[in-house]
Amino acid sequence: MHFTAEQHLDDGVVERKFTLGEIPGILWTPATESAPAPLILIGHPGGLNMMYPRLVARARHAAAQGYASATIELPGSGDRPRSAAADQARADLRGALAAGEPVSDDIVDRLVLPLVEKAVPEWQAVLDALLALPEIRGPIGYSGGVIAIGVRLAVVEPRICAAVLFAGSYVPRTIFEEARRVTIPLHVLLQWDDEGNDRQMALDLFDAFGSEEKSLYANMGGHTGVPQFAGEEANRFLGRHLT
Amino acid sequence: MHFTAEQHLDDGVVERKFTLGEIPGILWTPATESAPAPLILIGHPGGLNMMYPRLVARARHAAAQGYASATIELPGSGDRPRSAAADQARADLRGALAAGEPVSDDIVDRLVLPLVEKAVPEWQAVLDALLALPEIRGPIGYSGGVIAIGVRLAVVEPRICAAVLFAGSYVPRTIFEEARRVTIPLHVLLQWDDEGNDRQMALDLFDAFGSEEKSLYANMGGHTGVPQFAGEEANRFLGRHLT
Repeated sequence: MHFTAEQHLDDGVVERKFTLGEIPGILWTPATESAPAPLILIGHPGGLNMMYPRLVARARHAAAQGYASATIELPGSGDRPRSAAADQARADLRGALAAGEPVSDDIVDRLVLPLVEKAVPEWQAVLDALLALPEIRGPIGYSGGVIAIGVRLAVVEPRICAAVLFAGSYVPRTIFEEARRVTIPLHVLLQWDDEGNDRQMALDLFDAFGSEEKSLYANMGGHTGVPQFAGEEANRFLGRHLT
Repeated sequence: MHFTAEQHLDDGVVERKFTLGEIPGILWTPATESAPAPLILIGHPGGLNMMYPRLVARARHAAAQGYASATIELPGSGDRPRSAAADQARADLRGALAAGEPVSDDIVDRLVLPLVEKAVPEWQAVLDALLALPEIRGPIGYSGGVIAIGVRLAVVEPRICAAVLFAGSYVPRTIFEEARRVTIPLHVLLQWDDEGNDRQMALDLFDAFGSEEKSLYANMGGHTGVPQFAGEEANRFLGRHLT
């Protein structure tokens, strides 16, 4: 892991850009923390530069609670090499939506599964590297979009002890089956009036999760309009489980 | 309104039992409040004595936020005269459930509509009397069970400006239609794993509400197992809207 840039934000949070192999990412650590801090992995739908304002806001919240946080660029997004197969799947998805046709399992699988297969080991490699830093310790939380990545991480990565998931992206059937094997506490955010979101699938996925503690917090405000109070409740969820 | 008993709870909250005509109820006012306090109407499924421990806990929370709160016994519950028609509807409901048959609209209507028709004007009469007290002022919130009563109150009582509703009881079709006319902010609590609860109906009802701000917070823990954090979030919702 190479740190490529460092800046101190106005609230004292230290922001460091890094690369791990071909993976670019950002690590935020709390200002006043001298002891190692628990870590929140912040997921997003891809496009680190575009997502930065929202990500840094979440990182500042985490830092105010005493947590470090980190995010990485998704494979095929931002400045990373694009995938011709993913581009084709995206074009097929747009074609189906434009034609008013249902989005087939095949399109969803081609769109999401390769991303999950590549992104999850990348998250795990970054987690290895971050935990080797003296300023980071467990427990580890995950909070972010592309729910299929969150589900797979919750199943395969035992160092993650709680996850905030954002309902809304397409979920392959195989990920749906994996959801039954998730046992960590989950807090799922759903934007009820998000027309681009398959609400029934989100509800079915929530039902499928095997976790004894799982919460679904559905709100109005459209795809990107998660209300501030819902974000704060997600932070409280992480706060209960990362102490 | 006649006060029939008064006691000071250990946190200084003043608890007064009252009657208004044949309606028994309880009023709780904050310890340190000298100015008039906003009021939360606390609903419940009936049986004031049995429900008392949970109701007083909610009243203490409300008082800690600076709110007065009040509850009344439902028609036909506790020490109030029973209704032969309601008893018959309840017997028919049990019969249908025992036979594994679907609960018909007719049974639901006979069970719930007369209760709504009687309870809502009672709540309004109690609200009139409470607002005549110098220690009570608006805004008014509603928080409680028998969701059909909450829906009707939200439609017909303009003094109520926000409501916490507990999904889970049977809802007549006519109340479902009224839900579309609700416009006040709503916070709906749903116990996801409550087998006695028609979850799909609860989700459909949430979808039907006309309110621009509505939240659904679904949790595990069974019918009476609303987690403490979910109760606290409901209090925060009321806190945002009763200031």
